Amino acid sequence: MMDEALNIFEDLPHSSMEENFAVLFDRGGVMIERIVSTGQASPPGFWYDQNWTEWVMLLAGAARLRFEDDTEAVLFRPGDHVLITPRRRHRIEWTQAEPPTLWLAVHIREDGKGAG
Amino acid sequence: MMDEALNIFEDLPHSSMEENFAVLFDRGGVMIERIVSTGQASPPGFWYDQNWTEWVMLLAGAARLRFEDDTEAVLFRPGDHVLITPRRRHRIEWTQAEPPTLWLAVHIREDGKGAG
Repeated sequence: MMDEALNIFEDLPHSSMEENFAVLFDRGGVMIERIVSTGQASPPGFWYDQNWTEWVMLLAGAARLRFEDDTEAVLFRPGDHVLITPRRRHRIEWTQAEPPTLWLAVHIREDGKGAG
Repeated sequence: MMDEALNIFEDLPHSSMEENFAVLFDRGGVMIERIVSTGQASPPGFWYDQNWTEWVMLLAGAARLRFEDDTEAVLFRPGDHVLITPRRRHRIEWTQAEPPTLWLAVHIREDGKGAG
């Protein structure tokens, strides 16, 4: 038997109104997911406020991520990564629609109960 | 204050005889690292035999990863990822030297004691 690796750039969803989430790993309080954004942004006034740690890297496309405690959004290009500590409020101000924007997110719950 | 994201493709080591490991996150039993390979392979007869879970994705370059229980190595290209369960013996048979090969590895210890 030969294992085939899966490729994160393949099996992209058809263009959609919604962001697409694909769970790649989820066990022991750690969840790894691919997020495909095609122009979506957080709703006006919405802030993510998570009680777990998230490490996130942009893999393709471009996006602007804003932390509430910063004055400006941060432009993400492929390879850019950031650690989002629990309760640090943040939002996605913009994502590139075409070609799609791909993120790799690692969600870490230190209590081992799983994120999400 | 404006946060700047770090970029995983930047600050590469100068060419080296050794693989280069950069820890991006390490807490609560989860360690995320970048590995830069420039032609290195596992020594003949050597198998990694880890008691933790590793999720690994190739980000740049190319490599061949062999599982002991497979008959052939798997060719990895950027975006290819695989889950290596505990005690599944594996080795790196080859990595592209130039341009360098970059991996993102997420090591997960379910006992929360940290990998490595």
